[in-house]
Amino acid sequence: MSKLDESEIIKIFQRKLGCKNFVSEDVETFKSSKPNIIAKTDTLVESTDIPPKMKLADAARKSVIACVSDFAAKGVKPQYGIISVNFPSSISRSKVEEAASGFRKACKEFGISILGGDTNAGREVVFNVCLFGNADSIVPRSGAKNKDLIFATGPFGYTAAGLAILLHKKKGRRDFVKKAIQSAIHAKPRVGFGVKNKRYFSSAMDSSDGLSTTLNEMAKQSKKKFVITNSPHKKDVEEFAKSQKINQDKLVFHGGEEYEFVFTINPKYKATILKNAKSLRTF
Amino acid sequence: MSKLDESEIIKIFQRKLGCKNFVSEDVETFKSSKPNIIAKTDTLVESTDIPPKMKLADAARKSVIACVSDFAAKGVKPQYGIISVNFPSSISRSKVEEAASGFRKACKEFGISILGGDTNAGREVVFNVCLFGNADSIVPRSGAKNKDLIFATGPFGYTAAGLAILLHKKKGRRDFVKKAIQSAIHAKPRVGFGVKNKRYFSSAMDSSDGLSTTLNEMAKQSKKKFVITNSPHKKDVEEFAKSQKINQDKLVFHGGEEYEFVFTINPKYKATILKNAKSLRTF
Repeated sequence: MSKLDESEIIKIFQRKLGCKNFVSEDVETFKSSKPNIIAKTDTLVESTDIPPKMKLADAARKSVIACVSDFAAKGVKPQYGIISVNFPSSISRSKVEEAASGFRKACKEFGISILGGDTNAGREVVFNVCLFGNADSIVPRSGAKNKDLIFATGPFGYTAAGLAILLHKKKGRRDFVKKAIQSAIHAKPRVGFGVKNKRYFSSAMDSSDGLSTTLNEMAKQSKKKFVITNSPHKKDVEEFAKSQKINQDKLVFHGGEEYEFVFTINPKYKATILKNAKSLRTF
Repeated sequence: MSKLDESEIIKIFQRKLGCKNFVSEDVETFKSSKPNIIAKTDTLVESTDIPPKMKLADAARKSVIACVSDFAAKGVKPQYGIISVNFPSSISRSKVEEAASGFRKACKEFGISILGGDTNAGREVVFNVCLFGNADSIVPRSGAKNKDLIFATGPFGYTAAGLAILLHKKKGRRDFVKKAIQSAIHAKPRVGFGVKNKRYFSSAMDSSDGLSTTLNEMAKQSKKKFVITNSPHKKDVEEFAKSQKINQDKLVFHGGEEYEFVFTINPKYKATILKNAKSLRTF
């Protein structure tokens, strides 16, 4: 297989992303209708963040999702993106095409316009995604009040179970395996729910460093004690944990990369939140 | 030597950068007084972009400089930055401190406020820097007109000579060696010159992919033929090339990473540009 040079990689990205301007300027420019610009950048490194057997298209999507999830937690819709990629010089054309397709698909899924980006050579695949939006304000990690209720946007445990199945050959019921793997490679941050309900949140944080880390960080920044009365998981996670002799809390609280978020609300908003969650198919 | 965990790396960055908010929120926020936001992100990868013997502080500075240079070419001052770092898990405390110091120094040098960032583990060192500014407009790569004059902001050849000395053990006169190595590890983009003179530029582009690539790209995007009548180098580069049997054009036109920029102007601005270059000690 012949090696691709940088100009060929750029052409693939221009074509696949439908972005003629990819690498056509020194900087990217966008307009903002509000004075507060929200930005998040995330770097995904092959050796650390791409599980074996994950397709490069899914890895590309994951690098977009990681940023989208941070926006979702703050109640902001990301509008624009810059994509930078590093590929080893031995990369094949089909892998580059796969990655570019993954970026396009993820950006389309969340309504993000790609401003541009660049390509470089490196020892391993590195994807860097930088997303922008704007907002009058963001929900802080630090705003939880006494007697607030704590919620998470989705059930936990499936992602960690999926990774245990993919990486450590754990086994489970066919429908559970499918659900768990889907959760590990195709997370779907709740942007709509975040944007619609941010006004009710006193604090919020993306959970992708793990649920326990997230709860601890919110408690620390809010200077409040967080008391968890219900573990946010479903029965099938319990069954999987038991059958595979995995600690259930490990799956639910110490997983990570669920791309859900945790938020706190004043108890008076409970009914509203539950109604909105139902209508947006969250939880 | 004990391994550093992520929270220790974060603490070092918070302390060294004087940025208490480093990794304290899901997203970064900044205000913009003008509706056009200018953004540039650049990823520096150890195996590709950090020459052997380059200190991590200089590598950190280089990752900032690479973005600053793109801003300089467009006549825009970068105002804010987000810094993301990947370190191998075996990294020592002193290396992390060195990197953090390099980031702080570079941001201070160019008046950039660090908004925040994040840290991750990876197989090799990866620095990602994302800078923001605002402007009414940017100088495009594509605006060169017939009969425009072509300028570069600095003499070329020193950076490539410096890398030849560092990587291939080439030798030269003591003062030349010093100058060349300084140029390779401590470039200084001409932000002030770019901002002050952008109104005269019909087109401009950062030269860090190499002078010839830059001139070709500007010519292509402007749909003009660029004719070079003077090679932008000094006598000592010629002497070094001759003595070390290196093709002089290779040093001047095919080097890269000079972090200067090329621009075109209407001939009527020639005297103004030369005067302003002198007062800002450019060229």
